[in-house]
Amino acid sequence: MSNAERVLARMREYMVGPTRFMNLFACFELGIVEALRKESGLTAAELGATVGAKPDAVEQLLYLLVKEGFVAQDEATGRYTLAALADVADADLQRALTFMGMVRTGMLRQLYYLPESVRTGSVVGLKELYGFEGTMFEAAATVAEVRGAWGPLARNETASVYPWFFGSFDVPAGARVLDVQGGNGLGAIMTYQSKGPDLRVTTFDRPFLEAECLRNFEEQGLSEHCSFAGGDILESLPTGYDVMLLKHFVDMYDKDDVRTIFGNAHRALEPGGRIVVLAPVYPEDVADPGDYQADFFPAYILGCVMGRGGLQKASTYRRWLEESGFEVTGVTAKDPADIPADAIINRVVISAVKRG
Amino acid sequence: MSNAERVLARMREYMVGPTRFMNLFACFELGIVEALRKESGLTAAELGATVGAKPDAVEQLLYLLVKEGFVAQDEATGRYTLAALADVADADLQRALTFMGMVRTGMLRQLYYLPESVRTGSVVGLKELYGFEGTMFEAAATVAEVRGAWGPLARNETASVYPWFFGSFDVPAGARVLDVQGGNGLGAIMTYQSKGPDLRVTTFDRPFLEAECLRNFEEQGLSEHCSFAGGDILESLPTGYDVMLLKHFVDMYDKDDVRTIFGNAHRALEPGGRIVVLAPVYPEDVADPGDYQADFFPAYILGCVMGRGGLQKASTYRRWLEESGFEVTGVTAKDPADIPADAIINRVVISAVKRG
Repeated sequence: MSNAERVLARMREYMVGPTRFMNLFACFELGIVEALRKESGLTAAELGATVGAKPDAVEQLLYLLVKEGFVAQDEATGRYTLAALADVADADLQRALTFMGMVRTGMLRQLYYLPESVRTGSVVGLKELYGFEGTMFEAAATVAEVRGAWGPLARNETASVYPWFFGSFDVPAGARVLDVQGGNGLGAIMTYQSKGPDLRVTTFDRPFLEAECLRNFEEQGLSEHCSFAGGDILESLPTGYDVMLLKHFVDMYDKDDVRTIFGNAHRALEPGGRIVVLAPVYPEDVADPGDYQADFFPAYILGCVMGRGGLQKASTYRRWLEESGFEVTGVTAKDPADIPADAIINRVVISAVKRG
Repeated sequence: MSNAERVLARMREYMVGPTRFMNLFACFELGIVEALRKESGLTAAELGATVGAKPDAVEQLLYLLVKEGFVAQDEATGRYTLAALADVADADLQRALTFMGMVRTGMLRQLYYLPESVRTGSVVGLKELYGFEGTMFEAAATVAEVRGAWGPLARNETASVYPWFFGSFDVPAGARVLDVQGGNGLGAIMTYQSKGPDLRVTTFDRPFLEAECLRNFEEQGLSEHCSFAGGDILESLPTGYDVMLLKHFVDMYDKDDVRTIFGNAHRALEPGGRIVVLAPVYPEDVADPGDYQADFFPAYILGCVMGRGGLQKASTYRRWLEESGFEVTGVTAKDPADIPADAIINRVVISAVKRG
């Protein structure tokens, strides 16, 4: 195969990306897979009656799943049974389906507007679909459909990421911790619960979040240990903290902004003060075929979430931290054995200390 | 890798299908690839200035193209050059981009509604996007965006399919040919021009198409040789013809309807009368990894075009034809050497004769 043929063949893979995705998702969404899980050896007519669709359409949608070996069809009788899909544990399947549900509701239509989102630096899809101007995170607060698509995914990610995150760095006893861009205080609460009991944790975010945040601290009975400070991370960060946590957001900013945030953290910390960054990173070899983040994040972040921003390599964050006056003391990745085969996101924890 | 891991890894491929597609398409749509074709060794800043986007966003979108080897980036300078993409002939690239443009405008948003389209047997996406109730072909007549997405693709397909189609069967001199579901008469005109000069060709379609059809015959100076007959292929087909052409539509009907159409053709023809079917077909081995039609057509036809219908195997059409009283005399596929590496559609010509 020539170079040109390889490119064209690869473009064909891309062309069928949207149809493959929705064909598979529709088989779950319509209940076809569930029906086959409950009863093996159903015909298209029986499946159609069960899920409320014409047998012809069920048969068409199942071609792809038979091609993939997910489902098998008996040639003589036409009856379907789960094949490889039967071997997937329910929790694994539910995790993958939660992700696919987010792609369907939170991305498929929005991606149509990707070129315009890139040109304008805003999520045009949110404006077109919901009349909403702002980021996907902001939309999730007011648009039920966006919250419905993203909420379950966020909860899955929280459950799989935080135990590992908090296990990957130490906080000195009695330290004052700032949870930068900490939102509604959930991160501060988890920090206290993981690293307490003698910590003081402060959520730093825009002032309008203060009331919700303090309410959450109170509900958890943590008002003595957790507090709120209002401000803008691109302006300045507050002084008086030993450790600053930057979780889940540096990839949502463009280069200049990330460097501004690192600079603001450096100015606010004392020598010896620490910064802990949790973020997905591109592999050092961008062509690494086992890493799927370049296949996902640019279009996701630019077209569906922020209209700006994007991942960097760990080495890039390291360089920016060092140029900002930090010394990087560790970069921790998850144990590959703990990463399921459907995972796209590959986060690291970067720890750094302000040079004396 | 276990069975379950293989399924999950494959689901990951599906999850990144929509983002991969729009990321690549956006690089063409924004003019990034074109800028690199004109001038090699541009930085993200230079590309951003050229295409009207922030350099950070250009850099993000190009990660995937670098990963694919389509574009190369110099590590030291950050400058981009076309890599494998430079080897693709312009005509090939334009053909692939025309297809991708159709997927973007005619499918990406519509596919969101695939489950509902399957449940209702209608193209819900057309209703949601354009308030249009009907098929994509009908929408193309009135909705400019649909026509704009589908028209160029249809012209490409026409140019690549018809010379091969007309070369794959003979028509006796003086024969009366019926172009079943012949639309605006273009098929009849091409039939006459390919197989004339002593043919009489009649376009058969719904009566409202008569005026447009006759106008097209007149414009081509073919009013003496071409005519129109109005009707509904699911009701009956007219008698008095030697050959019936069924081009490009049996895959748009469900099983019962295709058999009705074959039956109607059989009733209308005399013994020895012939039927020529042009249609894409699934491979006999549905799991054939080199065939991409199961990856594309079910979601396309059900979710974006008709809300019903779908491809069959050539052996299925053969069986249905034989059960309808025809004898299949030939199944012709394109020479694989004539099929470009980006092609998804694989059509055959099935010729059959009414048994005496």
